[in-house]
Amino acid sequence: MTDHIFSMHRGGKLSIQSTVSVKTPEELAVAYTPGVAKISMAIHQEQAKAYDFTIKKNTVAVISDGSAVLGLGDIGPLAALPVMEGKALLFKELANIDAFPICLDTKDPEAIIQTIKHIAPTFGGINLEDISAPRCFEIEKRLKEILDIPVFHDDQHGTAVVVTAAIINALKIVNKKPVDVKVVVSGVGAAGTACIKMLKDLGVHQIVGCDRLGAIYEGRAQLDDSKQQLACITNPAMEKGTLKEVIKGADVFIGLSGPNILEGEDIKQMAKDPIVFAMSNPTPEIMPEIAKPFARIIATGRSDYPNQINNVLCFPGLFRGLLDCQASFISDEMKMATARAIASIVSDEELNPDYIIPNVFNPRVVQEVSKAVRHVVQTQK
Amino acid sequence: MTDHIFSMHRGGKLSIQSTVSVKTPEELAVAYTPGVAKISMAIHQEQAKAYDFTIKKNTVAVISDGSAVLGLGDIGPLAALPVMEGKALLFKELANIDAFPICLDTKDPEAIIQTIKHIAPTFGGINLEDISAPRCFEIEKRLKEILDIPVFHDDQHGTAVVVTAAIINALKIVNKKPVDVKVVVSGVGAAGTACIKMLKDLGVHQIVGCDRLGAIYEGRAQLDDSKQQLACITNPAMEKGTLKEVIKGADVFIGLSGPNILEGEDIKQMAKDPIVFAMSNPTPEIMPEIAKPFARIIATGRSDYPNQINNVLCFPGLFRGLLDCQASFISDEMKMATARAIASIVSDEELNPDYIIPNVFNPRVVQEVSKAVRHVVQTQK
Repeated sequence: MTDHIFSMHRGGKLSIQSTVSVKTPEELAVAYTPGVAKISMAIHQEQAKAYDFTIKKNTVAVISDGSAVLGLGDIGPLAALPVMEGKALLFKELANIDAFPICLDTKDPEAIIQTIKHIAPTFGGINLEDISAPRCFEIEKRLKEILDIPVFHDDQHGTAVVVTAAIINALKIVNKKPVDVKVVVSGVGAAGTACIKMLKDLGVHQIVGCDRLGAIYEGRAQLDDSKQQLACITNPAMEKGTLKEVIKGADVFIGLSGPNILEGEDIKQMAKDPIVFAMSNPTPEIMPEIAKPFARIIATGRSDYPNQINNVLCFPGLFRGLLDCQASFISDEMKMATARAIASIVSDEELNPDYIIPNVFNPRVVQEVSKAVRHVVQTQK
Repeated sequence: MTDHIFSMHRGGKLSIQSTVSVKTPEELAVAYTPGVAKISMAIHQEQAKAYDFTIKKNTVAVISDGSAVLGLGDIGPLAALPVMEGKALLFKELANIDAFPICLDTKDPEAIIQTIKHIAPTFGGINLEDISAPRCFEIEKRLKEILDIPVFHDDQHGTAVVVTAAIINALKIVNKKPVDVKVVVSGVGAAGTACIKMLKDLGVHQIVGCDRLGAIYEGRAQLDDSKQQLACITNPAMEKGTLKEVIKGADVFIGLSGPNILEGEDIKQMAKDPIVFAMSNPTPEIMPEIAKPFARIIATGRSDYPNQINNVLCFPGLFRGLLDCQASFISDEMKMATARAIASIVSDEELNPDYIIPNVFNPRVVQEVSKAVRHVVQTQK
C-alpha cells in the first residue's frame, strides 16, 4: 500500500497545460508577441477585462505555511506541498477550477499577509489552508480587508459549513430546533471557533466551548484573545467544569479536539436523542462503536463510518459559485447558503441517522452549492 | 485580426490538470488524506524528496511586476498577466515545463524580493520577466544570494545569451575573432548591460556602451550606479562622443535602444563587413532595407526579417537542463554553454549572412541547449 501511495505521488499530481496552440510563427504572433500586446493594453485601460482574457477568472491559490498540516503539525512548506497539490486536484476534479499550490517559506503573519497581497493579481480567489491558530484568524481578517477577491480559510469555514449542514439535517431527524438545543464543542482552535460562530448564525443560543481546562466562560483563567472573544458570545448560562461535566444534558456534541476523550457513559448523560460529531482524525473523540448504544446520530471525519464530515463537500462548489460571479468577497450569508445547499441534497425520504450528509462524489453537491452561492452573490453585489 | 487575437486569449491561455485520478473514495484516500500524509512525512524527514514527490521538480514561476512589459512600459500586474501566460505557454510547448505566472502587486524591490523568497518552495526555478532597470539588477542579485533554486531575469540574460550565440556565428562568417573586434552597444538598460557582460566573457575587449548622451566612459557626467560600473569594465580606449561618432570603425553594432537612430551612412563608416543587430521592437534602430547596402550581416528582433534574435531560443532549453539536474543556481558558464549550443545548431554548411541563428521552432534547440546545460551543471555541482 505504501509503495502504491509513493508511486501515485511521484512527480507531483498537477501539470499546467496550454489551452491554445503555438506551433507556428503565426500562432506565436497571436498568443505571444506582438499580438498579446493588444490584450495587455485592453486590460491596462480596463482592469476588469483581466477576468475575460486571463486565467484570473478560473484560478484559485491554495496557500499554506505548513504550520498545521493535517494532523501532522508544523512540518514546513515543502512537506505541505503534496497536501496542497491534493487540494488543487479536488478543485479541478470536482468543480473544474484551476487551483495552484503556493507553500510559504515564512510563518510570520505580517509577511504572510504581504506576500499574499502581492501575488493576488493572478488569482480570482484565495483558499488558505493548514495555517495554525491563532495566526490564521488575523491573517484571514486582514486579507479580507485588503483584497478585492474572496479569501477563505478552509480549516475554519469549510469545517463550519459542513458541520452546520450536518447539524441542520440531524436536528430534523430528532425533531429539535436550533433555538432549543444545547451544543457542547470540544476544541476551540480554528475549526471549533468557526463552528461555534456559524451555529450561532443558525440560531443556536446555548453553546458551551471547551478547551483542555474545561468550559470557557467569561472571567475564566487562561483565556487568550480568541477564547476571550468566544467567552463573550457563548455559554450564556456561565456553565463551569470539565467537558464530562458540561456535556450532561447537551443535545449535540461537536468534537474537534483529540482522540478518546469521551466514554459511552458520557453520551448516556446527554439529553434525549444525542447527536455526536466526533471529528478528531484519525481517532475520534469517541469511537462510533462505543457511542452507538447511546447516541441517536453519529458523525466522524472518517470515510469508513457513515456521515463523514468532509470539507470537500464545501470548497469546490463554493468557489465555483464565487468565480462564476467574479465575487469580490465571501459573506456569512454565502456560507450559510452553502450549508443549506449541502443539507438539501439529502431528501426527506433519504434522511436517516446513517445518512445526514451527502457523499463527496455526489455530482449534485457542486451543482447545488454553486447555484446557491451565485444566487447570494448576485443579490449582495 | 484584432477579433481573432481577443478570441484566442479569452478565458486565459493555461489550465491546471490533474495527473492522477481521484474519482473513487479509494483513490481519494491515496491522493489526498489519509495517504498523502505519508508523502508529507517523507519530505519532512528529507527535504530533497520534494523533488521526487511534488510538482517542484518541473515547475517554474514566471514573475513580473508589470513595470516594463514588452515595449508598453509600466502597465501594472493585471495587464502583464496575458504576457506571462504566453511565456508559460512557451515553457510548456517547447520544453514540457510547467510554468505558472505570478504578477506582483508591488514595485518595491525589497517587497518583491521578500515575496519571491516566501513563495519559492513550490518552484524548481524562478524566471523574472519585464521588471524595469535598474531595480531588476538588485532584485536578481539578492534572490540569487537567498534562494537555493535557479533565478533568471530573462530580459537581461535571455537576450544576452541569444545575442552572444548570434555573434559567435556572425564572427565566423566574417572570419574575425572576439578579441579583435570593436562592439558598440546602444542602450544600456537591463538587456544592453547583460549583453556587454556576456560579450566580455566571450573575449571581446573593445566594447563601447552608449546611452542618449553618447559613449559611456569613466568620469563622464550623468552616470548612475549601473552605468558607473559599466564604465569601469568597458571602453578601455576612453572613446567619447555620440553614437554616430563612436560607431566609426566598429565591427559590430548592437541596438537595444530605440527606433531609427542610425542611417545607411553610419553603417558605411563601420569597419569592413559590418555586423548590425538592430533589435529595438517593433521598429529597429535602422530598418534592414536601409542597412542592407552597407552591412554584411543584419539581425533584428522581428520575425518578418532573417535572423530573429528571440529569447525563446534560450529559456525553454536552459530551464529544461536546470530542472533535469535539480540545479540550485545558474552560472555564467551555463549561460555561455547555452549560447554555444544555440550557435551550434546552425552547421558550417548552413551558415550564411541570412541564417546565423536557428528558428525558434527547431526542436533541436531545446534538445542541444538542455544537454549542454546538464553537462555544465553536473560538472559544477
